[in-house]
Amino acid sequence: MSVEVRVPGFRFGGLAAGIKQDGAPDLALAVADTPASAAGTFTRNALRAPPVELSERRLRGNVAQAVLINSGCANAGTGVEGLRDAEAMAQGAASALKVPPSRVLVCSTGVIGPRLPMKKIRAGVPKLARALSVEGLPDFAEAIRTTDTRPKLASLQGEVAGERVTVAGAAKGAGMIAPQMATMLAFVFTDALVERALLARLWKQIVARTFNIITVDGDTSTNDTALVLASGAARNPILHNRASQGAAVFESLLHDVARDLAEQIVGDGEGATKVVEVLVEGALNEADAMRIARRIAESPLVKTAIHGGDPNWGRIAAAIGNAARRVRPQSISLWIGDVAFVEKGQEVPGAERAAHRVMQQDRYALRVALGLGSGKARMLTCDLGPGYIEINAHYRT
Amino acid sequence: MSVEVRVPGFRFGGLAAGIKQDGAPDLALAVADTPASAAGTFTRNALRAPPVELSERRLRGNVAQAVLINSGCANAGTGVEGLRDAEAMAQGAASALKVPPSRVLVCSTGVIGPRLPMKKIRAGVPKLARALSVEGLPDFAEAIRTTDTRPKLASLQGEVAGERVTVAGAAKGAGMIAPQMATMLAFVFTDALVERALLARLWKQIVARTFNIITVDGDTSTNDTALVLASGAARNPILHNRASQGAAVFESLLHDVARDLAEQIVGDGEGATKVVEVLVEGALNEADAMRIARRIAESPLVKTAIHGGDPNWGRIAAAIGNAARRVRPQSISLWIGDVAFVEKGQEVPGAERAAHRVMQQDRYALRVALGLGSGKARMLTCDLGPGYIEINAHYRT
Repeated sequence: MSVEVRVPGFRFGGLAAGIKQDGAPDLALAVADTPASAAGTFTRNALRAPPVELSERRLRGNVAQAVLINSGCANAGTGVEGLRDAEAMAQGAASALKVPPSRVLVCSTGVIGPRLPMKKIRAGVPKLARALSVEGLPDFAEAIRTTDTRPKLASLQGEVAGERVTVAGAAKGAGMIAPQMATMLAFVFTDALVERALLARLWKQIVARTFNIITVDGDTSTNDTALVLASGAARNPILHNRASQGAAVFESLLHDVARDLAEQIVGDGEGATKVVEVLVEGALNEADAMRIARRIAESPLVKTAIHGGDPNWGRIAAAIGNAARRVRPQSISLWIGDVAFVEKGQEVPGAERAAHRVMQQDRYALRVALGLGSGKARMLTCDLGPGYIEINAHYRT
Repeated sequence: MSVEVRVPGFRFGGLAAGIKQDGAPDLALAVADTPASAAGTFTRNALRAPPVELSERRLRGNVAQAVLINSGCANAGTGVEGLRDAEAMAQGAASALKVPPSRVLVCSTGVIGPRLPMKKIRAGVPKLARALSVEGLPDFAEAIRTTDTRPKLASLQGEVAGERVTVAGAAKGAGMIAPQMATMLAFVFTDALVERALLARLWKQIVARTFNIITVDGDTSTNDTALVLASGAARNPILHNRASQGAAVFESLLHDVARDLAEQIVGDGEGATKVVEVLVEGALNEADAMRIARRIAESPLVKTAIHGGDPNWGRIAAAIGNAARRVRPQSISLWIGDVAFVEKGQEVPGAERAAHRVMQQDRYALRVALGLGSGKARMLTCDLGPGYIEINAHYRT
């Protein structure tokens, strides 16, 4: 996927405002030339950070013009003062950009607990506003990083009702959560002209199938946010609903960019060396399928076996039994990549070596068929290796 | 706790029958001189092993006389043949001991998937029956081990209505589950004379407060079993109900032995170097308290912070938010050992060094007060360090 970083109707930027102690970029800004259709999904963690509260409230009308993000401090667990800081952050951007504060969203990611260094943010925002550029998305992506080993960008173009449309985005996150200093944040920008209600509906469904099916350690954070903004600069005939001309193309572009970003997050999971797709089929129903896929994807024992390249069928079986309402052991089958490893409850003789070979790959699928019904689900996970412990077991000071 | 291994009315034994490839003891037997009151709790994993099905069924009348256990093979995921093997195992013990097969319980622990080596078991059981001894509990404890680094024994004596009563037990388990080769099994024996129904009721409540509040990796196995047998050889006036003379003493002996064994299991958790008690109070209700305590105790991020001795309040806060129905950040307080680390949502200035010092101990408590209601819960967990990965990420062959 080649990365076209310009999205007509948007300017982006990122710089180091001194929030991070190591001097790395930590303040990012995206601005639409005019108010954009916008939608967001937010963490389900009951302990939500003030910027999440603020952005969710401001997105009720599904219109926004700017997003200001800081890394290095999550502004979470900071109570009433934290909410005031988030409002002041938005106010700073609104003044510098000359847009109404109600049109500015804010996100924060980093250590939970401390207050934001507001002086540094107040000083950084006007500088950042002056440095905005139509080619600034890579700087934006750089400035939202925390424990990520690399910036995460994705972009696609397509034809929507005769007009060239771009969908591009940036994301961060190396644990599904690493609350000390991480969070999953994703931002997607498009120049498509889309009715607000349609954008909100599409985004919700796409997030459920992309960002919500990845797991690194099974946790959710206080700050998780995924936003989409559509400037309309492409001047395609407006997309009212799914039947509108070009809506299917737009949906697929939006989905593919979100999926690409989601896969980049799990691939950069803390200490991860492999991405594994967990596919469950033949479950009693969708909910059971999802519970089982999630349990397999989150089991520390399955994840360590993936790390070791060990086709440890017993651990997968135990994870299934742990999550399933009902199982019939003699109707379970398992494929590791293309290798049929278990057929109707019996390990296929001689399959171990081939399965072990598949498990050396950077990316492969574990597919489980339960033979009970038509419920299906999909999750993306990574392995659990010593790197996860090294990153997370350090004493902070 | 001194370990008195004799329990009047019981004989025990353990030997190597060749099930384990390394020649370690792998077959254990406990026999009561006469039918004993008995109770059991079993795994809630939907994929239950045949020995679990068999023992649960035979325990319906709450009477048993013998328990035969093998390690090295879990006889799980083995279907109808596995059930037949479990029955044959029990039949072998019944013949050798001259007791009805319906009075013999069986447990298996080890690799999931393969069939039991029945020839070896059939040859081993009569030998084991001949080697039984009133002092054989340590051999029994030795033979039920899998990845455990040490055998787990506990014993207490007390006076129940004027008679000396002994409660002694053995357990195994180094992951709450390590399905490739482990499982939690616990066996407690007493010479107390206890009505069957009372024993069953007490055991259920005690297991809920001991074995069911420990976690190593959040998984449950296909074979988890906790059994208690009471021979009545102490000849105390029979304990009919909780109001019976001596019943409170007996309950407390039984509880303390179960708790001791449970703590030994978590202390020997795979790769563990510390045992941490997670106490939650002030939750909306008991269920919420338990969910929150469990989430803190199972969070890989909290467990790696414990390993690193890092008083990482943000990770605990995120785990609370992940599990809670509702939270009020400004009313959360946290103690690390005796150190007040967070008071009403604010980190206590200067507490970090003292908290870090507490976290160097082998055992300490994390106590969270939520300020919402009167729900309380307690969990025992261990740290997540490189040892867990080393044990579990090995390719089997």
